[in-house]
Amino acid sequence: MSKTSNAPETPDEEPTAAPDGVSRRRLLITASASAAAGALAGIGGTAAALRRTTQAGEAAHSDTVDLAASVPFYDQAHPAGIQTPPQRYAVFMTFDLSKTATANDLRVLLARWTAAIGQLVAGKPIGTVDPSRPDAVGADSGEAEGLAPASLTVTVGLGPGVFTDRFGLREKRPALLRQLPALPGEHLDPALTGGDLSLQACADDPQVAYHAVRNLARMVTTTAQTRWVAMGFGRASAGKGQQTPRNLMGFRDGTRNVSTPEQFDEHVWLTDAGAMTGGSYQVVRKIKMDIENWDADRVSDQEQIFARTKDEGAPLTGTKEFDTPDFAKTDDSGTKIIDPRAHIALAAHENNGGLMILRRSYNYTDGLNAQGLLDAGLLFIAYMNDPQHFVTLQTKLGAMDLLNEYIEHIGSAIFVVPPAPASGGYIGQALFE
Amino acid sequence: MSKTSNAPETPDEEPTAAPDGVSRRRLLITASASAAAGALAGIGGTAAALRRTTQAGEAAHSDTVDLAASVPFYDQAHPAGIQTPPQRYAVFMTFDLSKTATANDLRVLLARWTAAIGQLVAGKPIGTVDPSRPDAVGADSGEAEGLAPASLTVTVGLGPGVFTDRFGLREKRPALLRQLPALPGEHLDPALTGGDLSLQACADDPQVAYHAVRNLARMVTTTAQTRWVAMGFGRASAGKGQQTPRNLMGFRDGTRNVSTPEQFDEHVWLTDAGAMTGGSYQVVRKIKMDIENWDADRVSDQEQIFARTKDEGAPLTGTKEFDTPDFAKTDDSGTKIIDPRAHIALAAHENNGGLMILRRSYNYTDGLNAQGLLDAGLLFIAYMNDPQHFVTLQTKLGAMDLLNEYIEHIGSAIFVVPPAPASGGYIGQALFE
Repeated sequence: MSKTSNAPETPDEEPTAAPDGVSRRRLLITASASAAAGALAGIGGTAAALRRTTQAGEAAHSDTVDLAASVPFYDQAHPAGIQTPPQRYAVFMTFDLSKTATANDLRVLLARWTAAIGQLVAGKPIGTVDPSRPDAVGADSGEAEGLAPASLTVTVGLGPGVFTDRFGLREKRPALLRQLPALPGEHLDPALTGGDLSLQACADDPQVAYHAVRNLARMVTTTAQTRWVAMGFGRASAGKGQQTPRNLMGFRDGTRNVSTPEQFDEHVWLTDAGAMTGGSYQVVRKIKMDIENWDADRVSDQEQIFARTKDEGAPLTGTKEFDTPDFAKTDDSGTKIIDPRAHIALAAHENNGGLMILRRSYNYTDGLNAQGLLDAGLLFIAYMNDPQHFVTLQTKLGAMDLLNEYIEHIGSAIFVVPPAPASGGYIGQALFE
Repeated sequence: MSKTSNAPETPDEEPTAAPDGVSRRRLLITASASAAAGALAGIGGTAAALRRTTQAGEAAHSDTVDLAASVPFYDQAHPAGIQTPPQRYAVFMTFDLSKTATANDLRVLLARWTAAIGQLVAGKPIGTVDPSRPDAVGADSGEAEGLAPASLTVTVGLGPGVFTDRFGLREKRPALLRQLPALPGEHLDPALTGGDLSLQACADDPQVAYHAVRNLARMVTTTAQTRWVAMGFGRASAGKGQQTPRNLMGFRDGTRNVSTPEQFDEHVWLTDAGAMTGGSYQVVRKIKMDIENWDADRVSDQEQIFARTKDEGAPLTGTKEFDTPDFAKTDDSGTKIIDPRAHIALAAHENNGGLMILRRSYNYTDGLNAQGLLDAGLLFIAYMNDPQHFVTLQTKLGAMDLLNEYIEHIGSAIFVVPPAPASGGYIGQALFE
């Protein structure tokens, strides 16, 4: 979907919604208990018919960032934050559901998140002022007051732990949703792995993205506890119309990404998936880069590893970024110009039966590690209509990729993203009907 | 100084400078040894006369960010990154000089940093391609190729450890530069404290700021090692023309900041300070906020702590943000409306003999702490013409501030920032003459 300056409609039924036109002007004082009760009351509201809008996934590259732009949230063909042209910053957080949480608690959580996200993406605070409670705790922490929407999207994911008897959802488990198997070459840190719920907040202003996740986490603390969080910068690319950004290895990342609407339909969106139809599977990996060793490597060697030139990003068999790689081409001695163990060779759809996954990754840095070296890498976020596609690709990459000398997968999680909510409804509503 | 779209001039003498007009097009392959030798050769170059430009420190608030803007570096009245309208992101890194580093090593480091910063702020890579060395290691890591300057500034600080016999600089030590004394209420982590050198890189694109610090660190590894680093977002305010941003407590931060040129002259810039004349002292504190407890506090109590309203930012004795607080005003019962222990009361210049320091702080987050709570706070960066001014203020604040229940100073460092380099010269050059 293309970004628009029109704020999405906010349904009148949502109990925590501020009146239309009320921007982040007044800070919001609403007691948690009453908000939760009110949120549930909105669940039965009439769902507006889905307005199926074209999601082009293309945006012209520009050196100007329009922070006033906003992205529709309700009544979309697909959830925002996937085909949306990648914004410049991301905060990704996962949660564990409390051991005592009930199906009703989960419904309240999803309803409250839905209502709050509808407010946040329009540049509004969550909740309204209750004039009778001037001494209440603020419903919104306030640091985004006065900031524009900055194309904020918040994408909610449901992990395997949601689809259990406890929540009455065992029978509703999407057929392909299961924990990822152990994969070659990974060294996962339990503190960066798993989760029952995920929030992916992306915006062109990090304070807007951080504010969203912080406040969404805060409003559900009795039902879900934070598990791990990562912040990213440097947007990914979703198409040829958007200049391909570079990862912290200095190479363009995303040249051959899923980009056309036809590719999204073929590779990303779920069909015939019951309550999840229109959504997608989300696979997240925190990939640490040994960037100081990488920086000490010769550029020519780096180019062999990716099988692309560093400057232009052209495949070694071509001259321009979007030239199609020729994996069979040999040099005069009969040696393949693109090493079969090169990153793009192992990942290419030509070499994987046509498989493609949407990569919507961000660079991250966690400062310095205990050895005083730069601690940084890639917050890999991918969307696909079958998680096995990621498993297939990563099984090869983890075993053979020349890049493995310089990277390590240290975090991992999988979720299913429900379709966009209808106005008046809530994310995942069809699971409970 | 106001931001301009004109790239700063790069002196022809600089050995690592790309030809004018060469943007980040080609990645730079230059062997470190030859670059170091070449950089020193440039030290004797003719310094252009200082062009004293007005530094207004004011910029209109806008929801549009022009990433093509650049900030002059050479030949300015004062170093960039202090009076410069605060950009949206910051990377701050400190370094320890190697035990074996000599005065000449330090001069080479400063000369190389100067040449590289001149390139970086113009949106160019550091170093040029040596066509005879196609297999060399890249001089520039490459991830900022294709990115606009994004108003990058890099401000270099010299810590007390620079002014020693080892570097022949004991006699050149600025009179007021010494380690900060122990201050009340601080709990400093040695891993976030001190340093012989500092780099403050600020830009409207975090990838540009990170790229700058990463590459500047990388080019001097034999002379200086990284000590600690912090990344911040959410710009500070430098004047009434720039909307006052909010810290992660949701309050406006910087309403009564140093802003006019006269205030900069009176409170920030060094005069009669020998080689440091035109520069400033830099005090940095990493201040952790207990934001989850803060979020659980009543808004009315939060407002008493700051003595400002959360929404408007008005002092409790006024109605508008820029109303002057009336610290003597009492309510009907004779109680002061602004608690004398409130944050703005303790920090106000009226209550500190007219003292003011420029605060140029950024919000930071380090994800979750070991307890699963949000780990976040303020990267406090301040400039002043006498570090005792900070000591005076923090001695009071650390002992009495009502805010202390929710904050903790965990990192600290002090530096002196030399004046802006002349084109053809280098930062700190006057120290060695």
